Amino acid sequence: MRVLIFGGDGYLGWPTAMHLSAGGFEVAVADSYLRRRLCEEVNAISLFEVPDLQERTTAWQAASGFNIKVFIGDLNEWEFVETIFRTFTPDAVIHYAEQPSAPYSMFNRRAAELTLKNNLGVTLNLIFAVRKFCPNTHIVKLGTMGEYGTPDIDIEEGWLEVDHKGRHQKFLYPRQAGSLYHTTKIMDTDLLWFYVRMWNLRVTDLMQGPVYGLFTNENENDERLFSFFNYDEIFGTVLNRFVVQAAAGYPLTVYGKGNQTRGYLNIKDTLNCIRLSLLHPAEIGELRIFNQFTETFSVNDLAKMVQETGNQLRLNVPIQHIENPRKEAEEHYYNPKHSGLCELGLKPNYLTSEILGQMIEFALRHKNKIILDQIFRKVKWV
Amino acid sequence: MRVLIFGGDGYLGWPTAMHLSAGGFEVAVADSYLRRRLCEEVNAISLFEVPDLQERTTAWQAASGFNIKVFIGDLNEWEFVETIFRTFTPDAVIHYAEQPSAPYSMFNRRAAELTLKNNLGVTLNLIFAVRKFCPNTHIVKLGTMGEYGTPDIDIEEGWLEVDHKGRHQKFLYPRQAGSLYHTTKIMDTDLLWFYVRMWNLRVTDLMQGPVYGLFTNENENDERLFSFFNYDEIFGTVLNRFVVQAAAGYPLTVYGKGNQTRGYLNIKDTLNCIRLSLLHPAEIGELRIFNQFTETFSVNDLAKMVQETGNQLRLNVPIQHIENPRKEAEEHYYNPKHSGLCELGLKPNYLTSEILGQMIEFALRHKNKIILDQIFRKVKWV
Repeated sequence: MRVLIFGGDGYLGWPTAMHLSAGGFEVAVADSYLRRRLCEEVNAISLFEVPDLQERTTAWQAASGFNIKVFIGDLNEWEFVETIFRTFTPDAVIHYAEQPSAPYSMFNRRAAELTLKNNLGVTLNLIFAVRKFCPNTHIVKLGTMGEYGTPDIDIEEGWLEVDHKGRHQKFLYPRQAGSLYHTTKIMDTDLLWFYVRMWNLRVTDLMQGPVYGLFTNENENDERLFSFFNYDEIFGTVLNRFVVQAAAGYPLTVYGKGNQTRGYLNIKDTLNCIRLSLLHPAEIGELRIFNQFTETFSVNDLAKMVQETGNQLRLNVPIQHIENPRKEAEEHYYNPKHSGLCELGLKPNYLTSEILGQMIEFALRHKNKIILDQIFRKVKWV
Repeated sequence: MRVLIFGGDGYLGWPTAMHLSAGGFEVAVADSYLRRRLCEEVNAISLFEVPDLQERTTAWQAASGFNIKVFIGDLNEWEFVETIFRTFTPDAVIHYAEQPSAPYSMFNRRAAELTLKNNLGVTLNLIFAVRKFCPNTHIVKLGTMGEYGTPDIDIEEGWLEVDHKGRHQKFLYPRQAGSLYHTTKIMDTDLLWFYVRMWNLRVTDLMQGPVYGLFTNENENDERLFSFFNYDEIFGTVLNRFVVQAAAGYPLTVYGKGNQTRGYLNIKDTLNCIRLSLLHPAEIGELRIFNQFTETFSVNDLAKMVQETGNQLRLNVPIQHIENPRKEAEEHYYNPKHSGLCELGLKPNYLTSEILGQMIEFALRHKNKIILDQIFRKVKWV
């Protein structure tokens, strides 16, 4: 199966490329290095240097014997997308090519405009490219659990059956997000769902929770193959950030009351979910939606787990509640369903003290590179 | 009250500007003439020539004594928007500045991209301008009833109360539209609702049905003040098009079975709804939604009414069912609520044979200008 990865340089894009390449898929990656440029712009540096895609694919070929094709350019430009599809006509496209940071999307007007126009522009180009070159190609789009927000009823898997005044209708589950980034993902869903209905596209939308971790089966012996590991508040996901804070002796900064609850997953499970989705594609004319996470935690839960594991490693790990820079519910109902991917065969890697310990030990080995000023960034929502 | 109209050159923008100006509001209009350029691009010409905004405001001042300020430029460019708000800080902004044609949005990839980026870009600039210059300013945004699509339950006024597994949540009414244009209006709603929650904007979203008509209290004696009157399938709304078809002796072209039902309103009622919304603004932090139409008709209903009125005028008006170029339900449940604007005081101008007769007679007076090739345009949805 030929798989094209939009955003193949990202935190998840590159590990996905290796994982599928190792699994016998023919893989191509496309990226504009947007994330790298934005990280430079806001001075948010990965814990270690990450080689570019040419260097990574060369290292991967040396390690595995497999070749990954690289396209560098802006997927928001139609001519570039056309060039790719003329050269490499995929059976499936995985769409990660979005400005991925919620805080960055709230940074200022320019960042909001970039997030809006990049994320929707790339999605539109992808739709038109598939329509023009390969209408049966399976689009796997990374959505986010954040699209749902925190409603006071159960979060179903993508759809909601509504009984109203004696009549019945199945709707896309109503979405209401907490950042502009997440709102652009809602719009991606609007856009894909529209063209699925019009043009019978086949689309899987993976509503993913925050991902943590670094180690995958493909990179464990070669640091050149590691993905970005951001620990700042802008591009670092919360658990990765807490791990570095613990290693650095910096208090774990919990926003507000800390009872904000979300569904999390290990990066290994992201890769498994993607592979399972490819092996069991959506039907023609189907928008198939999975909620992609394996277990739910509050921020307090995560902070306590990192603290306990840190203490086992003889680290002193204080927890500090700070004023919440975001506008979000700090106490809320949260009961999201997530059975679809397990039915496809997902065997979750749950968060354990052992996994946390490995992450903290890794951060300790890079402790001399941690820049404390990077962590707390004061991007305010209002 | 100082009112700024985004898209003040359009079919509704210009009549709104005059109506508010006559009603004692201090009015400014901003427009890039995008609609004029797109009409030229697809060769869709108004039934009569329409002067530009400088000429129109000059004519309006001569007729009424009132001055309307004009800003010509691209509202998708932040610097232009900033310039306007520095010069004219409004108490309310009416946002019509969108690529307004559903068929145009389905024309080709470039048209889709323009529709998506223009409509969302302008909305984002409006939000940031209000936030920066006048955070209490009331935003009145024109949405469309088409955002709701044709669900099998009643369409409520913007919101849906859902009981689910013993719990309760009020959601934005789930939206599912029938064209890319309408989908961009859903995204506008996503965007405004997000920033209302974050920044306590005050927003009224008017979910409008197709508008018909030409005559308003402000333009009846002066053709230089008339708005565009398109009768092509791309920029002409269905009833205006039928009226010209009847005058031209061109069969009324009904798509498919013709039982597609929508909520319609007279252009005079659009103006009344806008004025009532301005006089009774949304609260700070409120997204207030009204369904803006006065009565529902199927396409068959409209065709029959035009035929009957045409016959009274001794015209021969055949009705022809043609293959539906759109992908839409031709038989469906439709029960949309629309009480909010009536509660504010709207007194509807219902569609009568007299009103239709005036419109047909107007078209007959311009019969020599009707270009029959313009009517049927074959923009296919799939």
